[in-house]
Amino acid sequence: MSDIIYLDHAATTPVRPEVLEAMLPYFSQHYGNPSSLHSLGRATGKALRAAREQMAEVLGCAPGEIVVTSSGTEADNLALRGVALARRQRGEGQHIVVSAVEHKGILDTACHLRDHFGFELTVLPVDATGRVSPDDLGAAMRPDTAIVSIMAANNEVGTLQPLRALSAVCRERGVPFHSDAVQASGTLSLRVDELGVDLLSLGGHKLYGPKGVGLLYVRRGTPLLPQITGGSQEGKRRASTENVPYIVGLATALMLSQAERQTESVRLTAMRERLIDGVLASIPDAYLTGHRTERLANHASFVARGIEAEGMLIGLDLGGICASSGSACTSGAQEPSHVLTAMGVPRVDAVGHLRLSLGHSNSEADVARVLEVLPPLVSRLRAMSPFANT
Amino acid sequence: MSDIIYLDHAATTPVRPEVLEAMLPYFSQHYGNPSSLHSLGRATGKALRAAREQMAEVLGCAPGEIVVTSSGTEADNLALRGVALARRQRGEGQHIVVSAVEHKGILDTACHLRDHFGFELTVLPVDATGRVSPDDLGAAMRPDTAIVSIMAANNEVGTLQPLRALSAVCRERGVPFHSDAVQASGTLSLRVDELGVDLLSLGGHKLYGPKGVGLLYVRRGTPLLPQITGGSQEGKRRASTENVPYIVGLATALMLSQAERQTESVRLTAMRERLIDGVLASIPDAYLTGHRTERLANHASFVARGIEAEGMLIGLDLGGICASSGSACTSGAQEPSHVLTAMGVPRVDAVGHLRLSLGHSNSEADVARVLEVLPPLVSRLRAMSPFANT
Repeated sequence: MSDIIYLDHAATTPVRPEVLEAMLPYFSQHYGNPSSLHSLGRATGKALRAAREQMAEVLGCAPGEIVVTSSGTEADNLALRGVALARRQRGEGQHIVVSAVEHKGILDTACHLRDHFGFELTVLPVDATGRVSPDDLGAAMRPDTAIVSIMAANNEVGTLQPLRALSAVCRERGVPFHSDAVQASGTLSLRVDELGVDLLSLGGHKLYGPKGVGLLYVRRGTPLLPQITGGSQEGKRRASTENVPYIVGLATALMLSQAERQTESVRLTAMRERLIDGVLASIPDAYLTGHRTERLANHASFVARGIEAEGMLIGLDLGGICASSGSACTSGAQEPSHVLTAMGVPRVDAVGHLRLSLGHSNSEADVARVLEVLPPLVSRLRAMSPFANT
Repeated sequence: MSDIIYLDHAATTPVRPEVLEAMLPYFSQHYGNPSSLHSLGRATGKALRAAREQMAEVLGCAPGEIVVTSSGTEADNLALRGVALARRQRGEGQHIVVSAVEHKGILDTACHLRDHFGFELTVLPVDATGRVSPDDLGAAMRPDTAIVSIMAANNEVGTLQPLRALSAVCRERGVPFHSDAVQASGTLSLRVDELGVDLLSLGGHKLYGPKGVGLLYVRRGTPLLPQITGGSQEGKRRASTENVPYIVGLATALMLSQAERQTESVRLTAMRERLIDGVLASIPDAYLTGHRTERLANHASFVARGIEAEGMLIGLDLGGICASSGSACTSGAQEPSHVLTAMGVPRVDAVGHLRLSLGHSNSEADVARVLEVLPPLVSRLRAMSPFANT
């Protein structure tokens, strides 16, 4: 395993040792149900409260404004469904606005609310770099707009959205603004007041925490209809016995990643730049996707014309390099990515999309290795490809 | 920690060593996203498929009939919301039937569907032992009944429901029958065909697996509207990157508990009987709640008249014994349990309810210790109680 060069940190990250260590006592030793009155229950209840305070400190919010969920996707669902349904009940709207490049957790949920629950939906276009224009958002807003959801950073092309300008448009009109920051959580500031968001989704496994835990920040006073009902956990906004080890793990991961954020961003950006420059210089007929500068520190993505991504991924994998073609859902069907399509990337190019996402485990040597392996691989694939000679 | 006598296995259980061991490699070593094409992704994808097959073997179903969730409560929510909404869309009904003693994950969800989504709800009564009558269920069924949900075993009083008779009533009428078997999962058979269920909820942390994972069995052909949308995980019925360690852990816990079920049930039943006989013989004015024989092997519950449960729990806790008063949600408000109320237990008795739930860690010595500590504790509390002298 140690010989593998992992360049798929946008898909998932390993649990870092400090996080695993923090979680371990809560599986078999401090295992009480936090709702129990006895000593074992009180001990885990105390651990939960401490974890919630740590998370709130990172976000700059009150502990009660955090709803722990089982994933970033669940947080996205709770934000969109919870606010849309609650506001409609109050007669405050039935119109939803999202961008065309959202993660499927938002895009499919918005369509689900339209198709099954009678909401109206506006999907905002993006420019060639994947950015939403605040003017377009302003023009799309209606008196009955219930919620706007625009991601902080795109998972496939790494583009950062102008969040403050977008949230200002919503703030002016008093419409709740949600942002899916799952992909951004390792490298951006997560202070909710700086971002201007009313709701924010995060996921543990993109920041060296476990898969199966996430959180939704919900600004006090935001109407929210719970989506999982039963017990009174999470301030009656999300029932289920708390997943104590993972909540402790998420808090630990968040604190560590935010503490290291600035130094790690500098390190990753330098590697990213060498990777981008190196690929563009050594592979003819390749171009960067997403924004050149307004992109995640760890994210490089390309189109190599004339070949399919699958060949590159298999070739890299055989060379011990783990990469992806845009999202972790590329296997099977050859549908072109909705993100690239929205950005105007031609279908014939979109099938040749490659994403290289850096992280803790990577060093300059890994970048050098990719630049050694990838160009000849692309040449070989082009020589074999039916799409070549374009 | 090792000196504590834990008698709250109905609230939660520790993760057993074999489960922790099975999970550990998937945190930091085999950490790939199962949807990724590369070697790390393929490795976890393979582990997931193996875990799903193990779970399916325990339930006697096809692997594709299992939807992994983040908890028993989420499974309950998905069953009730998913089937009720899907069947209403097809014009197949808008009426829901549940019992009065369901876990809040069902009862609150049924009320939520009634109050926020326009469904009609029938709540079936129970007898003094907490059982639902199949005749009552038959009488409650309507041509527009969309789903029936009745638990396998009650968490507060341990009563087993006549599941086969109840499911037969639904089968005759072609109405999907769901059962919350979260509490029953350690001691009952979970073969879905024996139980006659169309949907079945299980939770990891009641059977020595982790908190934060559960599953819903969904019989092929049962209409189900997903409640968390996005990626195509779980056969497009529940989006989110899979929680690989916990899914492996749940499969391991299920296999082990079902393999040990019969011997462990015999051991637990013998201890339970000594506990029940001992408490009733040594504490005057106390009585068993729930059914005398049709009850969970590990479950003993009592009313000790004239005192409040909180005093007993605190007194037991000081004596190193962890117990509860019925469900893990007893702290704070002194609302009498909806289960005891439905069984006709007077309010003045319900506040003195005590639940002792046995498990792996318990031995005869623990039972002896409880019988040594509890009777004098009850006497002291009664001497101090304003409710005494009744």
